[in-house]
Amino acid sequence: MQAINASIDVDRGLWSEDIEASLAHAAMLVRQGIIRQADGRKIARGLKRIRKEIEEGRFEFRADLEDIHMNVEARLKTLIGAAAGRLHTARSRNDQVATDFRLWVRGAIDRLDDRLNRLIAALLDRAEEHAATVMPGYTHLQPAQAVTFGHHLMAYVEMFGRDRGRLMDARARLDECPLGAAALAGTSFPIDRAMTAKALGFAQPMRNSIDAVSDRDFALETLAAGAILAVHLSRLAEELVLWTSPGFGFVALGDAFTTGSSIMPQKRNPDAAELIRAKSGRAIAGLTQLLVVLKGLPLTYGKDMQEDKAPTFAALADLQLSLDAMTGMIRNLKADAKAMRAATAAGFLTATDLADWLVRVLDLPFRRAHHAAGRLVRLAEAKGCGLADLGLPDFRRVVPGIGPAVYKVLDIDRSVASRRGLGGTAPNRVRQAIAAARKRSMKR
Amino acid sequence: MQAINASIDVDRGLWSEDIEASLAHAAMLVRQGIIRQADGRKIARGLKRIRKEIEEGRFEFRADLEDIHMNVEARLKTLIGAAAGRLHTARSRNDQVATDFRLWVRGAIDRLDDRLNRLIAALLDRAEEHAATVMPGYTHLQPAQAVTFGHHLMAYVEMFGRDRGRLMDARARLDECPLGAAALAGTSFPIDRAMTAKALGFAQPMRNSIDAVSDRDFALETLAAGAILAVHLSRLAEELVLWTSPGFGFVALGDAFTTGSSIMPQKRNPDAAELIRAKSGRAIAGLTQLLVVLKGLPLTYGKDMQEDKAPTFAALADLQLSLDAMTGMIRNLKADAKAMRAATAAGFLTATDLADWLVRVLDLPFRRAHHAAGRLVRLAEAKGCGLADLGLPDFRRVVPGIGPAVYKVLDIDRSVASRRGLGGTAPNRVRQAIAAARKRSMKR
Amino acid sequence: MQAINASIDVDRGLWSEDIEASLAHAAMLVRQGIIRQADGRKIARGLKRIRKEIEEGRFEFRADLEDIHMNVEARLKTLIGAAAGRLHTARSRNDQVATDFRLWVRGAIDRLDDRLNRLIAALLDRAEEHAATVMPGYTHLQPAQAVTFGHHLMAYVEMFGRDRGRLMDARARLDECPLGAAALAGTSFPIDRAMTAKALGFAQPMRNSIDAVSDRDFALETLAAGAILAVHLSRLAEELVLWTSPGFGFVALGDAFTTGSSIMPQKRNPDAAELIRAKSGRAIAGLTQLLVVLKGLPLTYGKDMQEDKAPTFAALADLQLSLDAMTGMIRNLKADAKAMRAATAAGFLTATDLADWLVRVLDLPFRRAHHAAGRLVRLAEAKGCGLADLGLPDFRRVVPGIGPAVYKVLDIDRSVASRRGLGGTAPNRVRQAIAAARKRSMKR
Amino acid sequence: MQAINASIDVDRGLWSEDIEASLAHAAMLVRQGIIRQADGRKIARGLKRIRKEIEEGRFEFRADLEDIHMNVEARLKTLIGAAAGRLHTARSRNDQVATDFRLWVRGAIDRLDDRLNRLIAALLDRAEEHAATVMPGYTHLQPAQAVTFGHHLMAYVEMFGRDRGRLMDARARLDECPLGAAALAGTSFPIDRAMTAKALGFAQPMRNSIDAVSDRDFALETLAAGAILAVHLSRLAEELVLWTSPGFGFVALGDAFTTGSSIMPQKRNPDAAELIRAKSGRAIAGLTQLLVVLKGLPLTYGKDMQEDKAPTFAALADLQLSLDAMTGMIRNLKADAKAMRAATAAGFLTATDLADWLVRVLDLPFRRAHHAAGRLVRLAEAKGCGLADLGLPDFRRVVPGIGPAVYKVLDIDRSVASRRGLGGTAPNRVRQAIAAARKRSMKR
Repeated sequence: MQAINASIDVDRGLWSEDIEASLAHAAMLVRQGIIRQADGRKIARGLKRIRKEIEEGRFEFRADLEDIHMNVEARLKTLIGAAAGRLHTARSRNDQVATDFRLWVRGAIDRLDDRLNRLIAALLDRAEEHAATVMPGYTHLQPAQAVTFGHHLMAYVEMFGRDRGRLMDARARLDECPLGAAALAGTSFPIDRAMTAKALGFAQPMRNSIDAVSDRDFALETLAAGAILAVHLSRLAEELVLWTSPGFGFVALGDAFTTGSSIMPQKRNPDAAELIRAKSGRAIAGLTQLLVVLKGLPLTYGKDMQEDKAPTFAALADLQLSLDAMTGMIRNLKADAKAMRAATAAGFLTATDLADWLVRVLDLPFRRAHHAAGRLVRLAEAKGCGLADLGLPDFRRVVPGIGPAVYKVLDIDRSVASRRGLGGTAPNRVRQAIAAARKRSMKR
Repeated sequence: MQAINASIDVDRGLWSEDIEASLAHAAMLVRQGIIRQADGRKIARGLKRIRKEIEEGRFEFRADLEDIHMNVEARLKTLIGAAAGRLHTARSRNDQVATDFRLWVRGAIDRLDDRLNRLIAALLDRAEEHAATVMPGYTHLQPAQAVTFGHHLMAYVEMFGRDRGRLMDARARLDECPLGAAALAGTSFPIDRAMTAKALGFAQPMRNSIDAVSDRDFALETLAAGAILAVHLSRLAEELVLWTSPGFGFVALGDAFTTGSSIMPQKRNPDAAELIRAKSGRAIAGLTQLLVVLKGLPLTYGKDMQEDKAPTFAALADLQLSLDAMTGMIRNLKADAKAMRAATAAGFLTATDLADWLVRVLDLPFRRAHHAAGRLVRLAEAKGCGLADLGLPDFRRVVPGIGPAVYKVLDIDRSVASRRGLGGTAPNRVRQAIAAARKRSMKR
Repeated sequence: MQAINASIDVDRGLWSEDIEASLAHAAMLVRQGIIRQADGRKIARGLKRIRKEIEEGRFEFRADLEDIHMNVEARLKTLIGAAAGRLHTARSRNDQVATDFRLWVRGAIDRLDDRLNRLIAALLDRAEEHAATVMPGYTHLQPAQAVTFGHHLMAYVEMFGRDRGRLMDARARLDECPLGAAALAGTSFPIDRAMTAKALGFAQPMRNSIDAVSDRDFALETLAAGAILAVHLSRLAEELVLWTSPGFGFVALGDAFTTGSSIMPQKRNPDAAELIRAKSGRAIAGLTQLLVVLKGLPLTYGKDMQEDKAPTFAALADLQLSLDAMTGMIRNLKADAKAMRAATAAGFLTATDLADWLVRVLDLPFRRAHHAAGRLVRLAEAKGCGLADLGLPDFRRVVPGIGPAVYKVLDIDRSVASRRGLGGTAPNRVRQAIAAARKRSMKR
Repeated sequence: MQAINASIDVDRGLWSEDIEASLAHAAMLVRQGIIRQADGRKIARGLKRIRKEIEEGRFEFRADLEDIHMNVEARLKTLIGAAAGRLHTARSRNDQVATDFRLWVRGAIDRLDDRLNRLIAALLDRAEEHAATVMPGYTHLQPAQAVTFGHHLMAYVEMFGRDRGRLMDARARLDECPLGAAALAGTSFPIDRAMTAKALGFAQPMRNSIDAVSDRDFALETLAAGAILAVHLSRLAEELVLWTSPGFGFVALGDAFTTGSSIMPQKRNPDAAELIRAKSGRAIAGLTQLLVVLKGLPLTYGKDMQEDKAPTFAALADLQLSLDAMTGMIRNLKADAKAMRAATAAGFLTATDLADWLVRVLDLPFRRAHHAAGRLVRLAEAKGCGLADLGLPDFRRVVPGIGPAVYKVLDIDRSVASRRGLGGTAPNRVRQAIAAARKRSMKR
């Protein structure tokens, strides 16, 4: 039973929040006259000493004391005697653990947000450097149209920006204090919930005591935001794995982010990128786990909810690690602009430009222009050349009116530069987007 | 291949949004001089006629035309001829479907929010009616302390209120228009993205064309909010199943929400509640499905993303159904206040009140008071009576100083009334909470 | 990078298997003449010494050495010098870790099977004891027909029996040895894969080297069997939570499996059952995690696959814990036969017997008999009595031909005894089922 | 309520199984003398006529009749009158639907197994054709060692072979008949469960009536086998996407399996492969959904279980589609042996051969040989050439004793041919593996 019941291996991660919340609770009990000042002072002194013991690695966590709350309180009793027994007045482990866990998740959100900000900064720097570096844009992993590497990286700036937004929204919704809900019904002691809420940096106390002890939305929502973030990271990681494979060769990762092989002396494997890609599994699974735990659970507190912390701790810690590793890779990667440009030779990347030009200049309906461009692509394929290598007679066999101006349209750089509308890949537009993103990120 | 590739069975659900977006696109093409006014007029007339045909069930959806976009465009060609081929100028199916799907999800969010609002209204009404109806509050499905039924229902008002918040945050983040991103890189036509964004009711165009066609965050975030909402519904559904079981007998559901048995003539099964509980499976799975689809997908558009709509449509439609059914059950349920009160006799619900009283009146440290109350509970158990049935000598054997005032503390109604702090279960406090919730819900 | 790359915190769990596999590999290298006998002896001696060091807790695991394989090999080098460098001949970490992990999962399957067997034995004992203990059988948590508690427990014997079958099938499919696949392509050294396979207790070597290093089916299949098992456990746990709630009161758990409250002195919470129910979350999530990790992964080995062990270790360890706790609860629970019988008074449990009797004796078509029984139930409800309390005139008002023999049909014990066909709930049939199950479990 | 409760939109998929099971049930009722022969004949005639009506699309499914069972029975009543009311004697919808659904899943397993067999046959044919086609083998998507394309395809033959094994094991465990369990407790009618089990092709009746109506393991296990299969398909699909991307260019898919773009005239997108990859999402989600539905559900039947069919139908239908599409792609793909060989030039694929040779010929410990080979790779990299382009003096600078025989070791074909042990990539070994696989697949 102890083996399945004890949670100390996991919830010791809450030690700092537990002490912080107990300090706030004890101070409030004193001010409300519920416990004596002398006892309050002893409790505060004892708790601070325990904090120091833990910080210095001198605290012995005991499984027979089940959880972090009892470990702290038992030590407090050793340190200050009977007064320790007054700390738990007007609270229950149910509101205590809800408070501790909220504080922890709030801290984790802030740590993730900080890491996201750094990753965005790294992306902005590389995007600026490569605002005009031309590469093939892919759909279906097939070359589609030319874009700039900077523009491509800026897509991730948008994605990670939304991730920050989701985390901040979760944080705002989480920012209510359950302390004072006691077991489930509130308490008959004249406590001041506003005071403890404020002391712990919460915007306000929670409005319903039953909800306060039953709710784990704050963890679910943070895990959901984390799962979406992890999927974003997995997509960028996949691209790094592709780009470093010799068939692409667009990017070389810093040596710090690759590893060798125990058997193949030549290997430089993008291990960090693969691990980040894989860790999306834990983020998705962590969310699934907590949703499953809570599914069909009657109110109020059930012991099932003890299984909330392990998936949350693991998923958010892995995300932090992934963000750090990704930031390091982005900061250290060497983009091979030549290889990127060389790759634009394959795949007839300007076929759309050609079709658009036929619309604009020869007034063909788009569907007919698209069809004509398709025929020209097949002609070039048959000849084993690019579109620009076709002769004017070739062009005119398909669309009689085509003149020599067509060749300008088939130029990669011109193609990129022509997409200069809002959100487009033209270098100047990309530079504007970078500047605007820098401004937004400063505001926060 | 057609069997696996055609999406029309699913994406026909987008027909209305597809036509709306095409109308906006065509109007913009005209105003920017990209297509002729006459063509624009024909296109608009044709699209409106198609809308009517679909509304009236006279439109034939064809799998050989693959998707909703080609079905509409093919019909448009039949109706207006070559001008139909000009509609697809300066856009691609990639930005088209992203726009359609965003519009659909935005609409689904609004429908869910509306349903949530009605469910909250139903809960508030029942909570008001039962603000003073005493019942056992449970932790671990064991009787813990007395609460009021109204207070219990108000916990769900809090939960569903957060669900609304999450949906509104998702809506705000979704509210950007991908149209104009074309295939992935933007377009060289001089389009006005602000104009189409505005026409479709979006706050602004998306800022990066690659992100615009690659992103499905808006669906993920809505599904995540939906999964959390579904878990809330599953908890309330579980409670309805429990409360209607004879061991509890707290509640009778309206006949409309129960069903009989094909073999057992006496049955009245809480089918709707069970189905709502089960449908949390689809909500969680829908989210999982889309996270898995997107995991490790390189930018930009991949055909994988076609698998975004089926789980989203199914999960959100089921949620709407669940909300409607839950609202109906809450509006129609009959609470049995007598049975609830009778159930408070079991489980020594005032043991905490007793311990708290020992702290307050006899100044015992809480831990010792808790221990003493525990001994009195065991004494009553041994005698097969309640705490209030013990004699004063019994009390004094455990805590010498106890006087006759103890009996007041053991009264259920007094216990409930004493939890009058913010968030507590005292009837007056519950009524205040209801009033405040009504005010909040009006503001929106 | 080290923080994300090092796996030693997790894969140290493979230490024993790693040494076992290295011993087998080294012995084979010697016999095939690939390394010298003297080196082989040194290696074996060194590995055994490392095994002892780890067993005695004297081995220092180092994160800078990344994984368990390098930790062992580095120590081996310290112990025996250059000969240590010959151990890795003709193998790679890719086949090495696949071998280690298979050995570990095989061991975990055996441990689970052993625990399942004990749980089944406990259920059989309680089923035998309660083969004739009558209780309400529920559908939709509404009383449906009377069954015996023994019959109900035997349903779980069937479920856990299938779980054993799934684990055994997974074990048989897992039982092939990847060693010798080297990095991915096999090796040019003249190794004897049959010899190492046999030494490690595998049925045979794997047939394809690429599959050998890329495959994690064995973990997926075991996790899938584990997830289904966890759902079975969650259902039994849910029933224990219900049965110990005062509204049912069918069962009391041993004190070892309940806990008290930090605030409510009277509580005896079924924590172990709740934790088992909740741990289904981890089992489902562990499976999801590994499926997500492997989704879309090109062959052969990718670093993503390092994320295979954490979810597998955690999910299977939790299952073992859950099985132990469940076995303890089943062995220690006290069933309250009186409370069970009392509960059969509610819910008109013999209504089906009545309908069946009308079919048999009065030759009504079942649908009409069902309808008639339904009317009688409503009549009894209106009178606030049971079916057996209705008078003959009442019966005859609904079905004219009914005679006094009807009352026999309404007896609970007779109802239970009448379901004596294969799989039915009649006590004698249940006893036969128990005997047959004991025989089957002996065979294994 | 009807909207949430009616299941006919989903469970009409069971129509054929429902009629089959009713025919078997009615025949048994007659033989046991429970209903009259004349009634039995009418029922059989009516059911067969309904079967025909459905087959011919003339049957009207009605949502107000809730489910497939009531739709069939209502029609039967119209066709044959009161005798229809005798069909439901001695059964309940609970055992009826369990029987129908088992029959359906058994059929789906057989359909999947048939498709798997065809896919394996297609892979074997292509593997045979390319038993000696050399390509780079990758780990971490980095070139590792040379393998043959046939060997690579054979890895999938192993994977899909295990999938077949899992499905067959699930089928064997599923192959028990729930009919006769009635609502939950069995029946008092003298039915012959062995007779109906046999008539429906089941190996035997289920042994416990409560288990019979509560169990959905058979669907869970099939979905789990399907999820693993889907992950296998996603890996092969990913490789097809990679191989058709110009950076690899190893493979061209048949035109039937690629699609064009609405805007880019040159595109040939591997849509089918991407859809197969994405559909792993549905397979994983379907499994998750049913696990979530069943989690924490008390026995016996609950309406929650009605949510079992939708995910099962959808996931297994998609798998069937995916298998068909994959088989088509494998049958139609054109492998570009030249491009594969050309790609072996990059990545120093024989570095391991070199290290192994240093061990064998110069007796270096493997770790030192590995280190030396690594230095030579870096030397070649610095010179911008391959290992075979280094001069003897270069080799000797790193390992003094190296002679001209080293150059043979650096030959790709020789490297491949040297891995001739069991499971290795040498062409002859691959051909043996293919022959053995053909023999195994014939046996089934």
